[in-house]
Order: sequence, then C-alpha cells, then structure tokens
Amino acid sequence: MRAVTEVPASPARRRLAVCDLGSNSFRLVVFTAVDGWWRRTDEIYQPVRIGEGMAATGALGAEPMKRALDTITVFSHFCAASGLQPDEIDAVATSAIRDATNQATFLQRARKKGGMDIRVLSREEEAHYGYLAAVNSTTLADGAVLDIGGGSMQLVGVTGRHATDRASWPLGAVRMTERFLDHAGPATPKQLDRLRAHVAAELEAHPWIGRSGKRLVGVGGTVRNLAVAAQRMADMPAGGGVQGYAVERACVDELVERVAALPRSERGSVPGVKPARADVIVAGLTVIQSVMEIGGFPAIEATEAGLREGVFYSRFLEDRGDPPLFEDVRSASVLNLAAQYGVEPAHTAHVATLALGLFDDLAAAGLHPGDPIERELLWAASTLHDIGVAIDYDDHHKHTRYLILNAGLPGFSPREVAIVAQAARYHRKGSPDPGPLAHHFRAGDGRVLDRCAVLLRLAEDLERSRDQAVRSVGVRVDDERVELTLDALEDVSVPRWAAQRENPLFTRAFDRRLVVV
Amino acid sequence: MRAVTEVPASPARRRLAVCDLGSNSFRLVVFTAVDGWWRRTDEIYQPVRIGEGMAATGALGAEPMKRALDTITVFSHFCAASGLQPDEIDAVATSAIRDATNQATFLQRARKKGGMDIRVLSREEEAHYGYLAAVNSTTLADGAVLDIGGGSMQLVGVTGRHATDRASWPLGAVRMTERFLDHAGPATPKQLDRLRAHVAAELEAHPWIGRSGKRLVGVGGTVRNLAVAAQRMADMPAGGGVQGYAVERACVDELVERVAALPRSERGSVPGVKPARADVIVAGLTVIQSVMEIGGFPAIEATEAGLREGVFYSRFLEDRGDPPLFEDVRSASVLNLAAQYGVEPAHTAHVATLALGLFDDLAAAGLHPGDPIERELLWAASTLHDIGVAIDYDDHHKHTRYLILNAGLPGFSPREVAIVAQAARYHRKGSPDPGPLAHHFRAGDGRVLDRCAVLLRLAEDLERSRDQAVRSVGVRVDDERVELTLDALEDVSVPRWAAQRENPLFTRAFDRRLVVV
Repeated sequence: MRAVTEVPASPARRRLAVCDLGSNSFRLVVFTAVDGWWRRTDEIYQPVRIGEGMAATGALGAEPMKRALDTITVFSHFCAASGLQPDEIDAVATSAIRDATNQATFLQRARKKGGMDIRVLSREEEAHYGYLAAVNSTTLADGAVLDIGGGSMQLVGVTGRHATDRASWPLGAVRMTERFLDHAGPATPKQLDRLRAHVAAELEAHPWIGRSGKRLVGVGGTVRNLAVAAQRMADMPAGGGVQGYAVERACVDELVERVAALPRSERGSVPGVKPARADVIVAGLTVIQSVMEIGGFPAIEATEAGLREGVFYSRFLEDRGDPPLFEDVRSASVLNLAAQYGVEPAHTAHVATLALGLFDDLAAAGLHPGDPIERELLWAASTLHDIGVAIDYDDHHKHTRYLILNAGLPGFSPREVAIVAQAARYHRKGSPDPGPLAHHFRAGDGRVLDRCAVLLRLAEDLERSRDQAVRSVGVRVDDERVELTLDALEDVSVPRWAAQRENPLFTRAFDRRLVVV
Repeated sequence: MRAVTEVPASPARRRLAVCDLGSNSFRLVVFTAVDGWWRRTDEIYQPVRIGEGMAATGALGAEPMKRALDTITVFSHFCAASGLQPDEIDAVATSAIRDATNQATFLQRARKKGGMDIRVLSREEEAHYGYLAAVNSTTLADGAVLDIGGGSMQLVGVTGRHATDRASWPLGAVRMTERFLDHAGPATPKQLDRLRAHVAAELEAHPWIGRSGKRLVGVGGTVRNLAVAAQRMADMPAGGGVQGYAVERACVDELVERVAALPRSERGSVPGVKPARADVIVAGLTVIQSVMEIGGFPAIEATEAGLREGVFYSRFLEDRGDPPLFEDVRSASVLNLAAQYGVEPAHTAHVATLALGLFDDLAAAGLHPGDPIERELLWAASTLHDIGVAIDYDDHHKHTRYLILNAGLPGFSPREVAIVAQAARYHRKGSPDPGPLAHHFRAGDGRVLDRCAVLLRLAEDLERSRDQAVRSVGVRVDDERVELTLDALEDVSVPRWAAQRENPLFTRAFDRRLVVV
C-alpha cells in the first residue's frame, strides 16, 4: 500500500552529510538513500561570511574565523545527534579557505575545537563536482558546464556525458565586481567592455570552449538568479523553480543591459533579481554573457544541483562506473519520486503498459504523431499518477501535481514537467487544461495533454480492480470510431463501462468515437 | 531522519477495507494503521444507484442488481490483489439493501458470484457509526449528532462523549423530496411549512432532543454541501474543506430561502450547491433547519468523517474502551500527522518544550493573555513545523502548510487550522501574515499568529544543533526588554545569534526588546 513513514535505521539506508564551507555561507546537507530512492532530508544554513576582509589581508580574519568555528561546532553536534558516523560526513572547503594564507591554522582549529576534518577542494575537484551535478540533473550529453561562484568560474567540456576538458579562472562575480565595477552607480558601457575583454583574454588559451557542443548548463546562485529574472521577464509567476529552464542569449543581453543601467541600490527592483545579489549581479551576468559569446552557446540551462549534489553523486553512484552517472537521468527522476511516495508497483506498471500500448497502436493507425518524447511524458505521468495519495486520498490527483511540481523531476524541462503534472492532475475526471501552468505550454501542447490524460485515464479505468484483470487491449480503427477489445480471463463489465465513459474526451483528443467491447 | 517510504507488510501494519454499499453509490475504502499513525490509503468509487426504481416496487431491480454484483466483483478482485484477508474486509449495506424485499436473493448472489459477505446494518447500528465518526473527528462532548442520508435521518444525543439517546426516522433528503416537493419549480412556503410540520411531528416523541447540549455535529453529504455553500456565502474561496466548519442558524435559514425560491434546474447556480444535489437539497436543508429549531441548536458543525470512518474507528480503537474513542481528538490528529511524515521526535519534542516554556513565562510576566487554546495551537505548530521536509527541504515551511491544510487536523476548526498552518509557514523567516488564509482570521488572530510564530522560531533557533544543547531558557522581563538566559552545558554562540536575530518580530509581538545572553 502507498504510505509514508519514518525511514528505519536499517542496513538498506545510507546517509551522507555534506558540509559545504563556502566563502559566503556554510551549509550542511544530509542526503538519505534508501533502496530505490534518495533525497535531501535535512539542512542547516549559516551565513558565516568567512571571506570577510580577506581581500585586504589574504588571511581569514579573527572574527570570521570565530564564527566559522562556532558554526562547525554546531554542525558536529548536529551530526552526532543524528547518529552520523565519521565516514558519513564529508566537509569540503572552497574558494576563501582554499586561498587563505592561514588555512593550516584554521583547519587545525576546526579539527581540534570543532571536531571536523575538512577537505580543501582544488579548483579541478570543485569543477568536477559541478560537472557531476550538471550531468546527473540534466540530459546534457555534449556541450559544457559553467559554474560561477563569488571567487572563481569553472568550465567543463562534455562529450558523450564525459568531462573532456576543464579549467578554472578567478572570474567569480564578487572578484570581477571588485576589479571592474566597484562603485554604487550604473555600470558604464566602457566598464562592461573592459570586463568582457578581460574574460575573453582569460579564456583565449582554451580553444576547446568554442568547439564544445552547443549546449551549456549553468550551476550556482548567479545562474539560478538569472533564470528567475528571465522567467519574470517572460511574465511567468514567481516561485516555480528553475530546474531545466533555458535562458536564451538575447534574454541574457537584455537583462545585462537593464541591470547595468541601474545604480546598485535599484537593481533589486528588477523582478527576480535578489536584493542580496544586487551588488554583484552585473559582473556575474556579464561573465556568463561573455562565455556564451566566446563559446557560441545560444542558451544557458539552469540546474538547481551544485557542489553538494556533486559530492553526493560521487559517493552514491560510485558503483555505476567512472564517472559516476545515472544511466538515464529522466527515468531515474521519475522512479525516484515514485519510490519515495510508495506507489503500488504492479498496478502502476500495468497502467503504464496499457497506456503506452494504446499510444503505440493509435500512432500506428495514424491518429497522432507518435512522438517518442510525448511517449516518455505519458510513461512519467502513468508512473506518478497516484503519488498524491501519500497526502490524502481526496483530491489525490491535485496532490500528485503538487508533489511533481515541488519535489521536482530533474532532466525534464519546466514545460515537460508541466505536461506530466497536468496529465496526472486529470487522470480521474475533469476536462484537461493547462490550468495554473499555462505559461509553460506552447502551441500544440494542449493536444499532447489531451492525449496523455485520456490514455492514462483509460488505462486506469481498465485497471480498476488493481489485479491486472484486463491483460491487454486490441485496437481497431476506422474513419469514425476506435474500437477497443479487452483481453481478459473473466467478466470485466465495470472496467468496460468506466472506459466507455471517456468517450467525450477521447473524441476530442483523437477525433474518433470510442467503443469498448 | 524524516522521510517517506512504502509501508512494509509487517505485523505492526493493520488494514481494514470498508465496503460501503449505499443507495446511490458503492465505495471501498482501505484504512491502514501503522504504529503511531493511520489514514485512508486507497479507495474505489462506483455510482451504482442500486436503489433505482425501488420506490415503485420495493425490490432491487434486475439492472441495478447486475451493476451492484459487477461492482462487488471488482471490489473482491481489488481486495485479493491487495492481499487483504477476509477478516480485514467489512462490507456494510444501508438503506436500499436494508429495505429491499429481495434482500436475501441479493446477499446470496453477492456471496456466490461476488465473493463478498455483506453485513446489513440496522438503523441503530448506522446511527452508532455516525456517532463514532463525529465524536472521534470533533471535540463534541455534550450535544447531538445528526446524520442525514437519502432515505433516513439519525440523531444521537451525546453526554460526556457517550451516546445517551438515539433514534432514526425515514426523513432522508430523497424521501422528503418525493413526498413534499416532487416537482421542478420553486418550493412554495406552504410546501415547506408542511415538511417542517412533518419533521416536528416525527420528532415529538423524543423530548431528549430539546434537552441535549446545544452543540450539533452533522454527518453526511447534505451537511457537507451545506457547509460549502455557507462558506461561499461568507465569500470564502472554494476547495478549503469543511472539517469543523460551523454554520449558524441564520445562515441555514437564508440558504433554505435562496434555494427554495429557485426552480430545481437553477439551484446548482447557488455558489457551493452541487448540481448533482440540486433536486434534493431543499428538502435536506429544511429537515436540518427543523431539527435545529426543535433542538434549539444555534449552529451545525460539519465533519468529513462518516459511516466508513465509524466502522474503522470501531475496530481500530477497540482497545481504547467502550465506546471506542480517542482520548483527545486534537492531540491524536496532530500526532497522527507528525508520525505520518516522520518528524524527528527528540528534536520536535524539545522545540515544543522550549516554545511552551517561553509562552508560559511571558504569560506569567503579563506580556500576553496566556490563553490555553493559543497554547495548544503553539504546541501543534511546534510538533508539525518540519513535516514539509517529506516533500522537499527547499521551501519546507510552505510544504508543511500544504500538508496541514490538505491532510487535515480533525478536532480543530478551520480558523485554528489556519493559525497553526501559518505559524508553521513562518517558522523560519518572513513577516507572519494570514496570507491566503486571511478569510479564516478574526480580530486579534494576527497577534496570536505573531506570538506563535516568533516563539516557535526562537525555539527552533535554540535547537539548531538538534541535540538539545540548550536545555532550558530563563526569562527576565522589565518595562523595556525581555532577557533570555540560555541554560546549556557548553558554548552556544550560534543558537544565541540566531535567537537574537528574532528581535524585530519579538518586539512586534510582545512590545519589548529581546536580549539573549
């Protein structure tokens, strides 16, 4: 049965606490993997600002170091209280701690006072984790991964999902702001040109960037903020998440122009721009813009995964080979979500089989294009349609939509997630409609939704008794009607009536009358 | 750790499939109880209309009986596919089957062809299950339970949560429509008066109705529809659920007047009135109105629990005594939800202890009224604040609100649920606000929300390391400030900073500056 409960502390449960000790903030994230699924199960965040004052001295200051050690102590207490063993904790430091002249003192105190062994990542290791995060959370096969932080920017060239080139430059958003745009007023065209020329000069020694495939995936807070601002520019509602959202070059250009023309204090008024990033957003966006120009990338796709997920994947997927990659990110996402909310596997698999069988037969008869992507969306909706029961049986179709939208489906674009979510939303009744997700729908997607929803509904009707009584369905098509013949061992009147009731929606979707015999 | 998974088929898991074979529809509901929590985990619905044509003949017709047997067969298949054992299935029949002259034939065929043993409930048993549903899903202690269906109406007098009187009358909404209002036009005042006089005459022999406590809880579809329509009349948004919503007498009067003045075909246009009920809603509401008049009940509170829940409670709670009742419905609801989404018990309990300690100390110092109901809401919000992590860590405060609103908290009024949900929503950051639940807030509730949110936030800050490092908090109050002294074994700088940051909201809530030492 579907249901929800506490994860027992069993050998099947694996946990990893990743402590990400960045220049601006420290964050502890606990990942839990149980047979069949994984997700983040806990998190503590503390805005430590360990890099404060470092630009002047090159060393970690006394106050920031005190804050950092106190926070590390809290993290250690948290890990102990959660029963995490030393080999289940991976504390990694980047930028500020990596570059600090008094790094050794800090690491020693962290070990002695805070009880934490810290691994200082090289720039290459940091780039590698960004690459693992991107390739395991998107369908990127050929192209590049861009990871921009406060201090540095990494690029990784990807061929056949493998990292083939990688490099790191001190081109982070904070650093570039300090060097080229360190004032409160609008950025002048001359300043921006100087910054662009600097990026071009730095990247010149790496001709592979221009030869990468033309897909670019972006990691990090600046990229996420860019995607949110682009969504708002396209009049999308706030709060929908940016996983898989692609920002086109023209949109990046327009955003750079808009924020650069404003004084620092007013940049937060541009919809989607985080006020906390207002001081460094112009430099960050301009660096991204330059990379797109130099590499000839028409768009940048945001992913919400980053360093912490990269560290987790490197452990969790280590038995999948080297590099550690999901075999298929999209199906891994769907199965991960289905397993978390405990759908009944036999029922769900049979619903998917029946729905895909109808899809194939109707395509063969020429009633729809039979697009393989649409087929994949139908599979996802079939596999996930019941997960909302974990919240409440009443309105579970709506709860399913909520879970799909909020727990997320990395590897699918927001448009694809919207179609899957709406098809699942309409798996019981009602007239399928893009509803609150209309902003993701493009021309023709309404037809895709109709087809996915009605085929899922038919399959669900036929699987009413949940015991696979209807083993398969024969399809016969003529100019006026589609006749379904149910292959079953016994009387299946109820499934037959239920399926027959879908006639109005079926006619709308396939322009043929439905007859179930 | 918090998380979600499939419920293992272990000795700790108990299941019960209740097959509710009503006059209009058949419904199979599976309840699952695991150590610590229970909920509905599955459901099949089929609009069988077994009572069709029975008014004329007194017997179940051939076609309706065929539909019923086919549906029962589906239910049996479903139970077998789900691995439900015979003692885990309880099929109960009401009204139509109870009264059918060919009941015996039907029961025999159901057993032979459908593989299902059916228990035909007496009117008294049906009333008893309605009573169990009401008293286990509300805080009703003294008053009455009204359960109105299509054929009959039951009233149970309740004293000290025990059923002290019960009676059943053929005063169902369908039956009363057929007898007094069987035409398509508006109901005339004379017709309504005749119906009211009939109800009064029927109830006359039961003087206990007028002597019941003055609280009335209503069970069944007509009551739920009344509550939805009343919410819409009060300009509340649709879809929020009606659990615990109280409809006042004046509102019932106004609704009766409005729908009675319309011809049958237009009644569905009254906001909240289900078109499918448009034909019988006038009679149903008028019967309720008459009972309120005769019993002197100022309002009727809706509950979403009914016959099926009553059957479930009678089994699930049998070790709680006779009658089988939750000791405290409100705390049972909160703990049920917390256990379902697997919050970390030690952390959550300590957050609640710290928050309630602050609540008590600040009340003792005269900074707020110290209302025991408010204290209970704070406890609920503290216990549930993290359940949203089961959906995703990001925005888990919003997911917590979604789960509270959609999984529900029987025993709390919609207004109380709204305060709990918003306090949990603001347990991390932001300025507490009634937000999308403003329609439930009354004068003064904004202050209650501020207090609950800031005390929960302070407790959460102090429990940052999740290991109960801050054991307790000393409170000292003067005219300008509230000084908190942390009792801890070690250095707790981070919790101290975190708590200190709540000063602005604390000042807003308690009109004193917050100092954490």
